[in-house]
Amino acid sequence: MPRFFMAGTNIMGGMAIMTGRDAEHVRVLRLRPGEDMVICDGQGTDYKCRFVKAEKDMVEAEVIEVVKCPAEPSVKATILCGLPKGDKTDYIIQKCVETGADEIIFFHSNRCIAKIDTPQKKLERWQRIAEEAAKQSGRGIIPQVKWAGEYAEALNIALKKDLALFMYETGEREAFNSVLESNKEIGSIAIVTGPEGGFAPFEADLARIAELHVVSMGERILRCETAPVVALTAAMYATGNLS
Amino acid sequence: MPRFFMAGTNIMGGMAIMTGRDAEHVRVLRLRPGEDMVICDGQGTDYKCRFVKAEKDMVEAEVIEVVKCPAEPSVKATILCGLPKGDKTDYIIQKCVETGADEIIFFHSNRCIAKIDTPQKKLERWQRIAEEAAKQSGRGIIPQVKWAGEYAEALNIALKKDLALFMYETGEREAFNSVLESNKEIGSIAIVTGPEGGFAPFEADLARIAELHVVSMGERILRCETAPVVALTAAMYATGNLS
Repeated sequence: MPRFFMAGTNIMGGMAIMTGRDAEHVRVLRLRPGEDMVICDGQGTDYKCRFVKAEKDMVEAEVIEVVKCPAEPSVKATILCGLPKGDKTDYIIQKCVETGADEIIFFHSNRCIAKIDTPQKKLERWQRIAEEAAKQSGRGIIPQVKWAGEYAEALNIALKKDLALFMYETGEREAFNSVLESNKEIGSIAIVTGPEGGFAPFEADLARIAELHVVSMGERILRCETAPVVALTAAMYATGNLS
Repeated sequence: MPRFFMAGTNIMGGMAIMTGRDAEHVRVLRLRPGEDMVICDGQGTDYKCRFVKAEKDMVEAEVIEVVKCPAEPSVKATILCGLPKGDKTDYIIQKCVETGADEIIFFHSNRCIAKIDTPQKKLERWQRIAEEAAKQSGRGIIPQVKWAGEYAEALNIALKKDLALFMYETGEREAFNSVLESNKEIGSIAIVTGPEGGFAPFEADLARIAELHVVSMGERILRCETAPVVALTAAMYATGNLS
């Protein structure tokens, strides 16, 4: 069923009056009267609608059913990644949105090779990737992509979540599964991963001092663009959001 | 520590006599006498060696320790994917090798848009991607990439494993986590995923008749190149191979 995020629709009295981008969507999809579609409000609610008629720049549809979008996980996952080079950001955004992330936040850390001077332009492009992936995977929200700036700010954001995980490849660490198994009832989780060269030891120390859970994902070394997706998938699985 | 797969090394009497590609590797890495490296036999065994000397096309190294490669999972996972378009194959190979696949097998199914007439050339390129990913992620084997041909053959391969999962997005399905939780002690698993358009209903019916477990990964629609990685990650997590 065609599905899109509300951008120009008013819902009143059981009718959806679509203008702007939504009306344009209906035209592009060549929908015909009687056909069904889902308009999602981007806040977790799906409006199942039946196309009634189109007039100039306006489309009228009947609201058949209002439901909570079934694709939204019970856990809000914040993915925090040390800025990688090139289009690895795009990959992280697309795959984490598909896998159920609530927001994706990039930050600058000691070993980042990539640099961002004016994040605004990047953010607009990244947000479009998130919207596209959200639409394609049937999400009920458009996960936000943000720029945290410095590493310390990323840690601060992570610490505000019910469970804050710092994925690290050496030294003393907790087992990923035991941390997740002991925290099945969380409402929010933060997953912090590094850039290509990983985190510097002083960054890992700071994460420990700030009392994030420093965890291991086993002996296989994951690329910086793979680690967030794998960690998020395991978190979704462990919290019952992958079935 | 530099790490590579054996290709021209003889190990005898506690010494590694390296020729061919291995000797070339040592030169490229500009190793100096006294430096350590790992030569993996590609069958799960790591030889930790110390570089002694180089002569013409031959390198001599002392074997310090012989260990089972810690990165190899306890479960042998066979990933079977309906052939996708373009470079999605490369992505599937790279990410599944990182995540712990034992082998990756592509096949042709009803809704495949991509076609392969002579798989040999593709297979050579795919195998190089697998080797590169295996080296980078510290694997103890080089997962093999294969071409199964027709869909029925893919099902046959899957059925030979301890647990055969068919990932499907509609109809009656088992919950992914309940299947995995009831099968934690398996030695091998097969994960079957479809191409861009998914599987045709008759293909899903055949999988049911053949008694594969038809399973759901939840309400989020995963791209054909994302599904195998997410399913494999969950299987690794559930069997204790992600900590």
